[in-house]
Amino acid sequence: MQSSRSKPCSCPSLKLREVASMYFTLVAAFLVILVVALQGSAPRQSDFPYKVPLDPQGLLELSWNVSYPEQAVHFQLLIRELHFGLLFGMSDRGEFENADLAVLWSDGHNSYFGDAWSDAKGQLHMDSQQDYQLLGARRAPEGLYLLFRRAFSTCDPKDYLIEDGTVHLIYGILEKPVHSLQAINVSALPGGLQRVQLLKPNISIPQLPRDMKSMEITAPDVVIPSQETTYWCYMAELPEGFPKHHIIMYEPVVTAGNEALVHHMEVFQCAADFDSFPHYNGPCDSKMKPERLNYCRHVLAAWAMGAQAFYYPEEAGLAFGGPGSSRYLRLEIHYHNPLVFKGRRDSSGIRLYYTATLRPYDAGIMELGLVYTPVMAIPPGEDSFILTGYCTDKCTQLALPSAGIRIFASQLHTHLAGRKVVTVLARHGRERQGVNADSHYSPHFQEIRMLKEVVAVFPGDELITTCTYNTEDRSRATVGGFGILEEMCVNYVHYYPQTQLELCKSAVDPGYLHRYFNLVNRFNDEEVCMCPQVSVPQQFYSIPWNSFNRDVLRSLYGFAPISVHCNKSSAVRFPGQWEKQPLPSITERLREPSPRCPPSAGAQPAAPVPLHLGQLRRD
Amino acid sequence: MQSSRSKPCSCPSLKLREVASMYFTLVAAFLVILVVALQGSAPRQSDFPYKVPLDPQGLLELSWNVSYPEQAVHFQLLIRELHFGLLFGMSDRGEFENADLAVLWSDGHNSYFGDAWSDAKGQLHMDSQQDYQLLGARRAPEGLYLLFRRAFSTCDPKDYLIEDGTVHLIYGILEKPVHSLQAINVSALPGGLQRVQLLKPNISIPQLPRDMKSMEITAPDVVIPSQETTYWCYMAELPEGFPKHHIIMYEPVVTAGNEALVHHMEVFQCAADFDSFPHYNGPCDSKMKPERLNYCRHVLAAWAMGAQAFYYPEEAGLAFGGPGSSRYLRLEIHYHNPLVFKGRRDSSGIRLYYTATLRPYDAGIMELGLVYTPVMAIPPGEDSFILTGYCTDKCTQLALPSAGIRIFASQLHTHLAGRKVVTVLARHGRERQGVNADSHYSPHFQEIRMLKEVVAVFPGDELITTCTYNTEDRSRATVGGFGILEEMCVNYVHYYPQTQLELCKSAVDPGYLHRYFNLVNRFNDEEVCMCPQVSVPQQFYSIPWNSFNRDVLRSLYGFAPISVHCNKSSAVRFPGQWEKQPLPSITERLREPSPRCPPSAGAQPAAPVPLHLGQLRRD
Repeated sequence: MQSSRSKPCSCPSLKLREVASMYFTLVAAFLVILVVALQGSAPRQSDFPYKVPLDPQGLLELSWNVSYPEQAVHFQLLIRELHFGLLFGMSDRGEFENADLAVLWSDGHNSYFGDAWSDAKGQLHMDSQQDYQLLGARRAPEGLYLLFRRAFSTCDPKDYLIEDGTVHLIYGILEKPVHSLQAINVSALPGGLQRVQLLKPNISIPQLPRDMKSMEITAPDVVIPSQETTYWCYMAELPEGFPKHHIIMYEPVVTAGNEALVHHMEVFQCAADFDSFPHYNGPCDSKMKPERLNYCRHVLAAWAMGAQAFYYPEEAGLAFGGPGSSRYLRLEIHYHNPLVFKGRRDSSGIRLYYTATLRPYDAGIMELGLVYTPVMAIPPGEDSFILTGYCTDKCTQLALPSAGIRIFASQLHTHLAGRKVVTVLARHGRERQGVNADSHYSPHFQEIRMLKEVVAVFPGDELITTCTYNTEDRSRATVGGFGILEEMCVNYVHYYPQTQLELCKSAVDPGYLHRYFNLVNRFNDEEVCMCPQVSVPQQFYSIPWNSFNRDVLRSLYGFAPISVHCNKSSAVRFPGQWEKQPLPSITERLREPSPRCPPSAGAQPAAPVPLHLGQLRRD
Repeated sequence: MQSSRSKPCSCPSLKLREVASMYFTLVAAFLVILVVALQGSAPRQSDFPYKVPLDPQGLLELSWNVSYPEQAVHFQLLIRELHFGLLFGMSDRGEFENADLAVLWSDGHNSYFGDAWSDAKGQLHMDSQQDYQLLGARRAPEGLYLLFRRAFSTCDPKDYLIEDGTVHLIYGILEKPVHSLQAINVSALPGGLQRVQLLKPNISIPQLPRDMKSMEITAPDVVIPSQETTYWCYMAELPEGFPKHHIIMYEPVVTAGNEALVHHMEVFQCAADFDSFPHYNGPCDSKMKPERLNYCRHVLAAWAMGAQAFYYPEEAGLAFGGPGSSRYLRLEIHYHNPLVFKGRRDSSGIRLYYTATLRPYDAGIMELGLVYTPVMAIPPGEDSFILTGYCTDKCTQLALPSAGIRIFASQLHTHLAGRKVVTVLARHGRERQGVNADSHYSPHFQEIRMLKEVVAVFPGDELITTCTYNTEDRSRATVGGFGILEEMCVNYVHYYPQTQLELCKSAVDPGYLHRYFNLVNRFNDEEVCMCPQVSVPQQFYSIPWNSFNRDVLRSLYGFAPISVHCNKSSAVRFPGQWEKQPLPSITERLREPSPRCPPSAGAQPAAPVPLHLGQLRRD
């Protein structure tokens, strides 16, 4: 079935006969390409430093590298069990519709490779511009290796733009022969999605000291529960009298065979206020979990699927051990087990590398964004509602050293409605530099990311964090708070030298929000309504959400003064007047970089490339 | 001086020497083109049916035709006195900066033609894609003819998109030799602007009856005042006992030599309520003008520079004469005399063609848009504030015949702040068809425009008229009203068969506006302010215009119920409940057509084309 949707440059339906005739035309040229490509394509580990399983069984394994000079990604896809083809591609949030796909398909005799896109109904179309460029294909004992290349930006409106931050990869499996690409509807195929940070920053690895030691914080032979989602908690302990050290690097330790199940892991340090913490080894949401474990929230290390080792900059390390630092650590592992495997055993965790030879600077973590308060709320049924948190010039003026701080990594955080997070640095009312941005942010994929460029922040600078939320599936307002159905807008930035400033966030002035509630009550019923003193969430829940009330809330957040939290710790503010502060006014925005397009000469013709794979095996 | 502004595909600065070397490379190919082009390019009148003088002296005369199959405009520019070159082009509102220009320039020896663009400072740059395509150049006794072609849409972001409605043409004169295009700053050149409707609709001329007669309504030997702007009023009279006729066509009569001075002309019929009107022949704003002339407002004919004859559709004519129709007509001529010529005499006007053999239908004029009321207001300092007027389904249900009406022409109208006007037809909440749209609307260029396609409107349809205003130069709110500094948003649609519905417009419900004033007062000062009963304009003038008050006014207009004027005449409503009507809800918008781009093969290289004009004359 072919879509009737019109397309500016639509491709002719490639019937088998046409494909055959094309084949003879293209085969000569193609063979040359293939030979050239395969000569250089013996897959060495170092060629593709990043690796992630695509499916829960690990039958599809994606490796890749990033060439910033070429502005392109090279992919190596290992297909352990090939049926009649495979789709691999990208889409905004992992949906199969409106996706940009590389397709390998077989009609039972011959195999082809092409660049395609799926429309809003999942129907595949050959792309008029072939931007997934096949570099080679190779059979090996473990399966078929496909090598191909994609420029970050192709300037083809049907193509996905590969940006920094999260990329939603999708795959689909062809279980029957297909006679043309147009015969495929992606929505009906078995397949799945995997989130990765495709554009890994190109950072040189700092020199490591000779006295470096390591310790593994790993779960001791856990039986992974046979359920889709498990957060596992395990308490570890530093040796008694462990002096201050610097963590200078950490890396994942994943039990072989469980690569597709271990989704992300974090090591938290507990609060120093308590002398001891109970030992625990079990699900984090168990009723048996001791209350006190909630006081283990200071992040020491975080890893997510596809991430590699994390290195601190040469001048800094993350302090742990010594007086004023808790000996207790909590390891949290998110197991993602959608196929509900039973009895799988796992001892994954994180390996910390540390040194007693302290580096010049302690690294610190600072929290930017919104205060956890219900005054910041999102109406229900919004497809992209924006909330903004400010770290103001007044706060950085007071709290940062005159030589400034250097932000080198960042972890973005929202709850389930979060769709985008961006932090920008502004100076004198002008946006100067992005600190971190994820236009395809997912709350299910939170990792600490090294920044491509270290960001220097000086006294008087402003750090503005903007979160975009989707509440289309909700029927009442979503207020700010700690609950999973409440929202957050946070950027944990990792920086050095450590300062006393732990938290630089904001929320709308509560008095102005009160005016908003009054205004809404009066506007909808001109009788002046004396609202009973109900809670802010209750007031939000009782608003009739018409377009006016939505618009005015948006206007309020863009206008009303803010309450600034410029804090030494979550409870202790720097001295000063922090209430009813003016919103920073930004006179100059950062410009979106206009995408660089490959020269049109580089694009390949809109025809499938035949492959010499022999007959594909039927399982 | 060359701009330092970066451009994705910036062109090398073409120094004289480079140009010379390019010349030899290009000249062979060019001569072939030139010969081919000139053979077919003897300018016949019919080749370029539309003509307009560009400058007030008429030294530059532009003729053009429109090819809808090719989606291109062919231009013929007659340059009566050529100095060292000429710039001709288009920009959003006639400004010289950010303009898209065809440039003919001479270094004193050789001449060149190229496609260029001016940046925000007026600095010229050669365009990387040459979309003004030179077709030929020819010397004639009256001057030099340049022939060139431009596609409506080039998909080059530096190019102007030629759309329906007003196009602001600009020209500049090079009075000294220039050695490269990059040496030109447009902002410093003598030049000017001319507004035209470039994309004239491609309408076949209806057959005209044998008994057709004509009458000229012309000003009798007026001495054009030596001032930039004059609106001249002249009263004419139909013969006594003149029976009902149908006007089926009209055309301008412009005194030879005054083509550049007569800007636009309208013929109005006076109100039938008065038995007689005083004769008058003088400026419309004179204190001597009799009051009663203000009752001559029913448009019979309207012409503006660049327009051709206006034909009524074959089935309809505009009734005039007979009982219930005034014998008195008012001719109004706008003389635009920026060079302040003295003593120019003029007898221009409009020639009406009419028939006593009445056509099946009387044509009618209906007013769509906003009611003239101060409740619709625009805050000061807005660069594009939108107001919308609705002709609701309830009104068309009541007032239109079941067979519907056919709209065939439209005249858009705002006062000085108007920048865009669009009317769209919606049915069952879905936008179906544009009725008229002008994205470069100017209050200084109001003409009756034939629609490309006749629009059928049926009972239950909605007609939504949206006006965009710019008030950046104003310090207080602009309210709706009749005054020149107040605003209107009107589309006079010409249609048949005539119905009783003369006016189908709306304005925000005054009660909701009152709530807005209360809300603004309370929000800015929580004390409940009991506003004195001042007028709506006074209330608008007293608002402190911060971003919140602006946003909320915008939200109010997008939300509050409306008062609908569904009127037989300006004072008589159709029976029914017309207050506090719901805003029509539109669930599906018309999609912007994605521009068709010429195949990149058609684009010429980014190099100037040398011309064989010999040495250009120095005045």
